[in-house]
Amino acid sequence: MIFHSAAYDKVGYGLIIAKAALSMGMEVHTLFTYGALKRLARNNTDILGEETDSEILEIVENGLTLGIIYPISHQIKDAKRLGMKIYACVTTMTLLDIHQDELIEEVDKVTGIASFLDIASNATISLYI
Amino acid sequence: MIFHSAAYDKVGYGLIIAKAALSMGMEVHTLFTYGALKRLARNNTDILGEETDSEILEIVENGLTLGIIYPISHQIKDAKRLGMKIYACVTTMTLLDIHQDELIEEVDKVTGIASFLDIASNATISLYI
Amino acid sequence: MIFHSAAYDKVGYGLIIAKAALSMGMEVHTLFTYGALKRLARNNTDILGEETDSEILEIVENGLTLGIIYPISHQIKDAKRLGMKIYACVTTMTLLDIHQDELIEEVDKVTGIASFLDIASNATISLYI
Repeated sequence: MIFHSAAYDKVGYGLIIAKAALSMGMEVHTLFTYGALKRLARNNTDILGEETDSEILEIVENGLTLGIIYPISHQIKDAKRLGMKIYACVTTMTLLDIHQDELIEEVDKVTGIASFLDIASNATISLYI
Repeated sequence: MIFHSAAYDKVGYGLIIAKAALSMGMEVHTLFTYGALKRLARNNTDILGEETDSEILEIVENGLTLGIIYPISHQIKDAKRLGMKIYACVTTMTLLDIHQDELIEEVDKVTGIASFLDIASNATISLYI
Repeated sequence: MIFHSAAYDKVGYGLIIAKAALSMGMEVHTLFTYGALKRLARNNTDILGEETDSEILEIVENGLTLGIIYPISHQIKDAKRLGMKIYACVTTMTLLDIHQDELIEEVDKVTGIASFLDIASNATISLYI
């Protein structure tokens, strides 16, 4: 799975898929790039953000309040516990000027796209979110 | 195929791909979530909506008027006739407060992500739209 | 790979993935549709455009100035040199009223979705961007 969009609903739903896959015994490898990578920077993970569509934003806020949606940070912890791997795209880190020591501890590795494609080429399902 | 975005052009183009695949003898299974799921609620299928980019919106309106683009409801009927399966994501239904009896009749089943991944893991092509 | 979004960061990052895959000896076939197709029209390839999120736009402009991001036209040339195939979706061309002679020379073929799916069904990784 490649996470590109920073939109709350996209990252959140991607993680729901990841958790379902992990629960079914699949391996899940995720690469975070562009807007999505910003969510791996400490204190940025759960920001609602400007990149979430306004109509969807209401649904998300409502879901968070009612406890139907879990915060992204919470979901990342759950997915990690189930074995999900998180890679941060090194090119995007340079671009966004994010340093390795600013990343949340759940990140497994800072990596390039080639290494990630190497893993993805053995995957049964590939998703670009 | 997972439909996430509510944008008219994304749902519409996804269905064009689905119909092409079905015509070639492939099986097509679709899961509708978030914004895209709203289009499965009766009377909502063909709404142009705020989530379609304004520049793209003009192209879509023009295409619909000229008959180059078919309405989404029309495309869903066509794809169903060719054998497409439509699943509505149960988590999103709770989130959007959409009840099963509000869904269009073309929906095959309300389902969870795990059941869908089970099907997707046998797919040759997986698309997240 | 199917390029749908016109957003500068999405097309740009998709091409980065393509180049990495090509460098690793994979074959890469790309279909350009909707907003993304507009970038295959001459003089339109590198436009920053309204479909790029404003927050992301700043990052892209900054990256281009610093030389961390290469212009899309530059990346297309690089990827073509490595063997990438570019197909322009014929349905979208009708819709956008773009004629074959307006396309950049890097386009290999104007084609339908069925032909592209035929190629994609043999792919190990499929991405919808």
